[in-house]
Amino acid sequence: MVYRITAARLDRDQALRERILECALARVAEGGFAALTMQGLAEDVGIATGSLYRHFRNKGELAAEVFARASQREVDALSAVLRGPGTPEARLAAGLRQFAARAWHSRRLAFALIAEPVDPEVDEQRLLYREAYAELFGDLLEEGVRSGAFQAPLLGVSSACLVGAIAEALVGPLSPPARAAREEGHSQPDLAAVSQALVTFCLRALGARLPEDPTP
Amino acid sequence: MVYRITAARLDRDQALRERILECALARVAEGGFAALTMQGLAEDVGIATGSLYRHFRNKGELAAEVFARASQREVDALSAVLRGPGTPEARLAAGLRQFAARAWHSRRLAFALIAEPVDPEVDEQRLLYREAYAELFGDLLEEGVRSGAFQAPLLGVSSACLVGAIAEALVGPLSPPARAAREEGHSQPDLAAVSQALVTFCLRALGARLPEDPTP
Repeated sequence: MVYRITAARLDRDQALRERILECALARVAEGGFAALTMQGLAEDVGIATGSLYRHFRNKGELAAEVFARASQREVDALSAVLRGPGTPEARLAAGLRQFAARAWHSRRLAFALIAEPVDPEVDEQRLLYREAYAELFGDLLEEGVRSGAFQAPLLGVSSACLVGAIAEALVGPLSPPARAAREEGHSQPDLAAVSQALVTFCLRALGARLPEDPTP
Repeated sequence: MVYRITAARLDRDQALRERILECALARVAEGGFAALTMQGLAEDVGIATGSLYRHFRNKGELAAEVFARASQREVDALSAVLRGPGTPEARLAAGLRQFAARAWHSRRLAFALIAEPVDPEVDEQRLLYREAYAELFGDLLEEGVRSGAFQAPLLGVSSACLVGAIAEALVGPLSPPARAAREEGHSQPDLAAVSQALVTFCLRALGARLPEDPTP
């Protein structure tokens, strides 16, 4: 008798893989990649640890896929704003504010995505996604330079600068030590202040008119 | 008989450790952290692989120390310019140009330090050194804001933005694919163009007067 993988079996496999990834993402959102252990994850999903390895060769591969899934959501959210209606500078400001707010409201996840020390497989994904962000900004800058809203001597450099500035501006306030300090009541800048500082930095960097800038 | 570690023995150990680190740095400068294998390194140094482990518990620890040593040189070089003579904006521009030039002239090493996917121990050092850079910029920004040369709503955010912008602006041009493209004769921006774009981005971001800016 020939053994056949039935369509139903494939569907079940796919559904389980999906559930594993969602549980893994929940773990990372809660405690960072440090909390993503194969044993703990198997318990969350309710399967044997060995079964996890039928879906993911090792923790690095799983972590990389969780990273890609979470990052793609951020890229999509940013893309929707940057490619939406409005002037280039208004869309850039709105995109930065949204990016900062999303990171702020999922701090542990955002820190995990941006900066948590983790397997090289995730570092590789980080490089790819930073390129994706740079492309998004690059498209907007190109449009803005054409319309005169922005001045950017080299689009590639300016796009990369934006990606780096955004990531780095949020790493500090999102980092576990900063969160611990906040919880202990030490004063830390709030989202509105960080977000405004980031928007000001980036719009100025591109030679764009600031909405609140009093100079003509 | 009591066994004593003599001073001469300690000196020899220290000298060997130093030689190991210098050979390791040479390997990373040549082929990135990917080229830093314990076996290859032991051959370079001319010792048994096992002897390496008397000095470094594992590759991650060794890589982290190589990273810290190379990064400290960059921090020191930048610090010398940022804390040197001149107006805050001139020092910032000179520091950025020097940082870009040093990276450009040691591309493989710079990419390894900034972005190469590598052990989590190195990622941890990256976070520490990015803080060190942010502190350097923070001191300069504080001075510049006081003197009216810069406008920065939140010093911490602006400093972090500078660190991120610089790192990210160089990752692309320094990356192995970009170098391969250059070697194949595809046109890529040169150091002068990248450096100028970076300086323009950062000075504008801080509301500083650009030397070449024609507007009053």
